[in-house]
Amino acid sequence: MKASVKNVRALVFDTFGSVVDWRGSIIRDLSAWGKDNHIQADWAGLADQWRGLYQPQMQKVRTGERSWVNLDVLHRESLEILIPQFGLSNLTEAQRHHVNLVWHRLDAWPDAISGMTRLKSKYIIGSLSNGNVSLLTEMAKHAGLPWDVILSTEWFRCYKPQPQAYANACEILGLKPQEVMMCAAHNDDLVAAANVGLRTAFWPRPLEYGPGQHKDLRAEHEFDVVAKDIRDLADQLLIQP
Amino acid sequence: MKASVKNVRALVFDTFGSVVDWRGSIIRDLSAWGKDNHIQADWAGLADQWRGLYQPQMQKVRTGERSWVNLDVLHRESLEILIPQFGLSNLTEAQRHHVNLVWHRLDAWPDAISGMTRLKSKYIIGSLSNGNVSLLTEMAKHAGLPWDVILSTEWFRCYKPQPQAYANACEILGLKPQEVMMCAAHNDDLVAAANVGLRTAFWPRPLEYGPGQHKDLRAEHEFDVVAKDIRDLADQLLIQP
Repeated sequence: MKASVKNVRALVFDTFGSVVDWRGSIIRDLSAWGKDNHIQADWAGLADQWRGLYQPQMQKVRTGERSWVNLDVLHRESLEILIPQFGLSNLTEAQRHHVNLVWHRLDAWPDAISGMTRLKSKYIIGSLSNGNVSLLTEMAKHAGLPWDVILSTEWFRCYKPQPQAYANACEILGLKPQEVMMCAAHNDDLVAAANVGLRTAFWPRPLEYGPGQHKDLRAEHEFDVVAKDIRDLADQLLIQP
Repeated sequence: MKASVKNVRALVFDTFGSVVDWRGSIIRDLSAWGKDNHIQADWAGLADQWRGLYQPQMQKVRTGERSWVNLDVLHRESLEILIPQFGLSNLTEAQRHHVNLVWHRLDAWPDAISGMTRLKSKYIIGSLSNGNVSLLTEMAKHAGLPWDVILSTEWFRCYKPQPQAYANACEILGLKPQEVMMCAAHNDDLVAAANVGLRTAFWPRPLEYGPGQHKDLRAEHEFDVVAKDIRDLADQLLIQP
């Protein structure tokens, strides 16, 4: 284990894409729901375009162009933009609400729960996600994620990669930045955390965006740990020195 | 089950006294530590007087007499007040810090974990405590409390029984007050929650303050559920209608 990692006491995880498979989960969930309700649509296309609006929507909050709203609200607004294109204009209010909450019903990648459960024996493990608190709480129950603590940028009224997201997470844990490791499958999230002084761990999720993904296929910076997945992260961090 | 309880989706628990036995835990922890370190003191007396300063210290924050500080800070200030009376003036800084963090190392009452684990199968279960986030996170790891989400008044920069503690907890869970049940062994906590519209569950902890306890021996108001303990709360809430 690297010396830089020795004092780490808490691991905070990016969730969407890093811990849970948002694309595969949305396609599975809405395909099954659509079948039950005789609603056909290009659910994969909807998932991709919905996620495509994620950064631009958050950016309006980050820049102050609009005041704080949480991710459930942003997801719903994006969904309303996409509904006409996907031939879903007949959805009722209750159906739109159900579809919007698909982000609360995401499944973990196969290695996530076993890896996190092992890491929990030595470290505090928490989310550090742009998902709002109720989203992350319901997702954890749905997917069986064994968080010790749910940290959300909603608590801090900002969105990663704003530096206050990482700084506030350390402060609320009562830890110094070098005692906290940001764990993610996204280079930009880790670079932002490292700039605040956190330790960093990367693993790739080459299928997060489906086949043909071009970004985040490998660690593009000097992170403290580079792993194959969360199980491998546990292998590397739990080695006796 | 009462009709008023049917729509409840989340149970939020008071922790000190209701879920964990602060007095017994502090006496056990500091007695063992004192023995190991050849430090003798009236640990039961310290626990009682320390807790005695809890409400007056928080009251200064509630009234705005002083600006927000979290419970670790208040506990440390109270400890410093008591150290001379208890003959502990020779404690080093590291020892004072260790003693102060005894509030992170409290054990659950015997019924708590089995009751909460069963309740978790149907409800979101969270703390709603005046303990700060890191205190509650470490306490949960130490005692094995199976929270879905750690809610602390630190997130809202207030102290129960201020109404915003309960209102903000509901809002962050994305739930209406009537969908959230405050669960506690303290009448005043439940009355304050009910005033904000939350549902309420009471059970007594007749030994919270040790032998000779005079308060909170029974439900003094019309709460939605009155139980013997958390296991009994689970029995009552998990009955099929």
